[in-house]
Amino acid sequence: MSIAIAPPRSPLRAAPLRAVVPPFAVNIGIVGPGKVGSALLTQLRLAAPRLLRDCNLELHLRGVSDSRHMWLDCDDDALNSRTHGAQTWRPAELDEFAAYVAGERGEAAVLADCSASDVVADHYAGWLAAGIHVVTPNKRAASGPLERWRKIGGAASASGARLHYEGTVGAGLPVVQTLRDLIDTGDELTAVEGMLSGTLAWLFNRFDGSVPFSALVREAHAMGYTEPDPRDDLSGTDVARKLVILAREAGLALSLEDVAVRSLIPAALAGCSREEFMENLEGMDAPMSALLSEAQASGHVLRHVARLDGRQASVGVQAIDREHAFAHSRLTDNVVRFATRRYCDNALVVQGPGAGPEVTAAAVFADLLRVAGAMGVKRCAC
Amino acid sequence: MSIAIAPPRSPLRAAPLRAVVPPFAVNIGIVGPGKVGSALLTQLRLAAPRLLRDCNLELHLRGVSDSRHMWLDCDDDALNSRTHGAQTWRPAELDEFAAYVAGERGEAAVLADCSASDVVADHYAGWLAAGIHVVTPNKRAASGPLERWRKIGGAASASGARLHYEGTVGAGLPVVQTLRDLIDTGDELTAVEGMLSGTLAWLFNRFDGSVPFSALVREAHAMGYTEPDPRDDLSGTDVARKLVILAREAGLALSLEDVAVRSLIPAALAGCSREEFMENLEGMDAPMSALLSEAQASGHVLRHVARLDGRQASVGVQAIDREHAFAHSRLTDNVVRFATRRYCDNALVVQGPGAGPEVTAAAVFADLLRVAGAMGVKRCAC
Ligand SMILES: NC(=O)c1ccc[n+]([C@@H]2O[C@H](COP(=O)([O-])OP(=O)(O)OC[C@H]3O[C@@H](n4cnc5c(N)ncnc54)[C@H](OP(=O)(O)O)[C@@H]3O)[C@@H](O)[C@H]2O)c1
Ligand SMILES: NC(=O)c1ccc[n+]([C@@H]2O[C@H](COP(=O)([O-])OP(=O)(O)OC[C@H]3O[C@@H](n4cnc5c(N)ncnc54)[C@H](OP(=O)(O)O)[C@@H]3O)[C@@H](O)[C@H]2O)c1
Repeated sequence: MSIAIAPPRSPLRAAPLRAVVPPFAVNIGIVGPGKVGSALLTQLRLAAPRLLRDCNLELHLRGVSDSRHMWLDCDDDALNSRTHGAQTWRPAELDEFAAYVAGERGEAAVLADCSASDVVADHYAGWLAAGIHVVTPNKRAASGPLERWRKIGGAASASGARLHYEGTVGAGLPVVQTLRDLIDTGDELTAVEGMLSGTLAWLFNRFDGSVPFSALVREAHAMGYTEPDPRDDLSGTDVARKLVILAREAGLALSLEDVAVRSLIPAALAGCSREEFMENLEGMDAPMSALLSEAQASGHVLRHVARLDGRQASVGVQAIDREHAFAHSRLTDNVVRFATRRYCDNALVVQGPGAGPEVTAAAVFADLLRVAGAMGVKRCAC
Repeated sequence: MSIAIAPPRSPLRAAPLRAVVPPFAVNIGIVGPGKVGSALLTQLRLAAPRLLRDCNLELHLRGVSDSRHMWLDCDDDALNSRTHGAQTWRPAELDEFAAYVAGERGEAAVLADCSASDVVADHYAGWLAAGIHVVTPNKRAASGPLERWRKIGGAASASGARLHYEGTVGAGLPVVQTLRDLIDTGDELTAVEGMLSGTLAWLFNRFDGSVPFSALVREAHAMGYTEPDPRDDLSGTDVARKLVILAREAGLALSLEDVAVRSLIPAALAGCSREEFMENLEGMDAPMSALLSEAQASGHVLRHVARLDGRQASVGVQAIDREHAFAHSRLTDNVVRFATRRYCDNALVVQGPGAGPEVTAAAVFADLLRVAGAMGVKRCAC
């Protein structure tokens, strides 16, 4: 087993030091260098000089781990060469990885979990208890078993380490923090209503009867808009996870099982293999066309909507009035509407692209900067 | 101090987390107990028990000052009795006030400037230099002379004290912080386009030719939607200030003089007294009707729009396509659209009520919690 020793010249540290006080330094470890994780690595590298200059913040990339390998003390070159097979690595062991990222001199450390894995989420409590901050777009912890979620919260409270997860809902759109601010300043959530899946938004923005639904699913699949198995989108589970996260943020002890999810997948196509599903997509057309005709007959459009009011949580296709804000969404836009005691006449609405590696990575990065802010790093324009 | 006992906020937090550490305490001083300042006082009082329980944060209201009086060490009862004339006060002296709020034992202190005054903004640099944090919906500092703004920034950098001003644009909508996050994570602003005045939004949402513009202005004035002198809204200067704040946030050294503002006030009515203006409002009708007819002839609607792209900044009435998001705004909604390198196909949009004492106070309160977060106060739902 060989360890990669990187020369002390990461591009993340390249900018000249001008500050009088020594810079705030943050050790960073990235779990899951997939689409989002890789985008995050690029963003960190590009933003590092400016953050050092303007915010006196030094980013130290200490390591990267996927499910099988970990690269320690990698600089960006090493990370690039890894993809060419030249960089040495050792077998992944998450707690060993975390300890390495944390370092031995009490440095501030942040782990960015860019996986979609429950295995990684199982480690949060331990990491937080050890004072390591966690930022993530991974929905598993915040929408998973309540018992684990409470353990995670307890660990964070005890150590003071932070957990941020803005990227779990709406990717880079300001959704979780906005709700957090409303609740913490004493507002009360009346309802949250959202289009929380870019894929499903795209499908229903396009589905006007001119083309069968199955053809649109095939098109979205071919463009990479859907998960490899489109049923992961069509089932509505991913959207339900996002609704659970918002519900918990508003103080409700909601779980995935509590959400009434109307899946778009016909029962006959639910259990088959991915290939079989893709071959038999046309099985969706009759029920979807029926839904559309009914909606159109009353002058409505179809949208995939998540809704929470009081303790009722539901996810599924709805017929929507053409005057409703959801009817004006475009492309893969997500929309989130918060109706609260203060925002009662008109809701507080956040809208925009709610998926994509770059905007999701930016949410993780902003969470990381929030952690840095909590350490004393100044962030304002003046 | 009478404190409303809030119901237990969240089943998620039902298991009592006994804080091992003593609570984080923040001394608070409020400058400008007007509409926003009074709403803030109420919100602080109502949220205090929950913040202590859930976030281990203790809010100490140390004083309140308007332009002539200051009340020191007022608790909430005292504050209420003040309005009945029973509470003693002394003549306002802002630096004395700040020193009192800061205390003598190195407590964390935050001044909430809820005035609209340049006099108060002149004190920020000194307060920040002394380590006192400032949160404010007052646009004067962030849109005022660049020299003062830079001095303020220098003071904050040197001491580490924070300045937050989310409430200056869009009131409680997440606008300034959203832009901050985009820029700090390395995104680049292509354009920002907004409806930044609730008053002007309301007027143009209603102005369809059925009623003269002057009648709508009178109606808005009677409902308290406009400033006491409606010209303060109609001139567009307030909107231009908000655009300057966003431009500076994006890194541009813009000033009010750099914004091309097309005022709605006819030259003949610009110089007269408020009373004269209100009597001669009908002088606005001919030019406004002409604008409307022209827009309607091409199937457009009128909206009051602020726009910044590259270094071009402009504010004024525009004819807007009916398909444009601005055409679908309602009531007094503000809308802000960020087009960036990452948000290029579809913009990141924030929309909702952008004025009102409660939502503006909530923005100031959220800023205050951001300061508390920077001291180590934990804020997440788990
Ligand atoms: N992509 C988006 O637009 C988007 C939007 C919002 C949220 N998200 C969320 O962001 C996260 C990442 O999405 P993605 O699109 O980047 O996924 P992805 O491309 O599939 O990448 C996932 C990464 O996680 C790693 N991983 C899986 N299990 C692991 C484990 N046990 N330990 C360490 N690493 C592990 C994978 O490594 P291996 O190669 O070893 O499996 C891979 O590097 C997900 O939670 C997703 O829901 C994504
Ligand atoms: N109201 C909204 O919907 C809204 C929305 C967004 C932003 N804002 C901003 O929020 C701020 C407050 O608005 P508001 O509607 O609450 O105004 P307001 O009701 O007129 O209150 C202003 C307060 O500031 C005080 N003040 C003025 N000059 C002062 C000085 N030199 N020293 C100390 N106190 C001074 C006034 O006291 P005196 O009585 O002694 O003059 C008054 O208490 C403004 O900057 C406004 O632009 C308001």
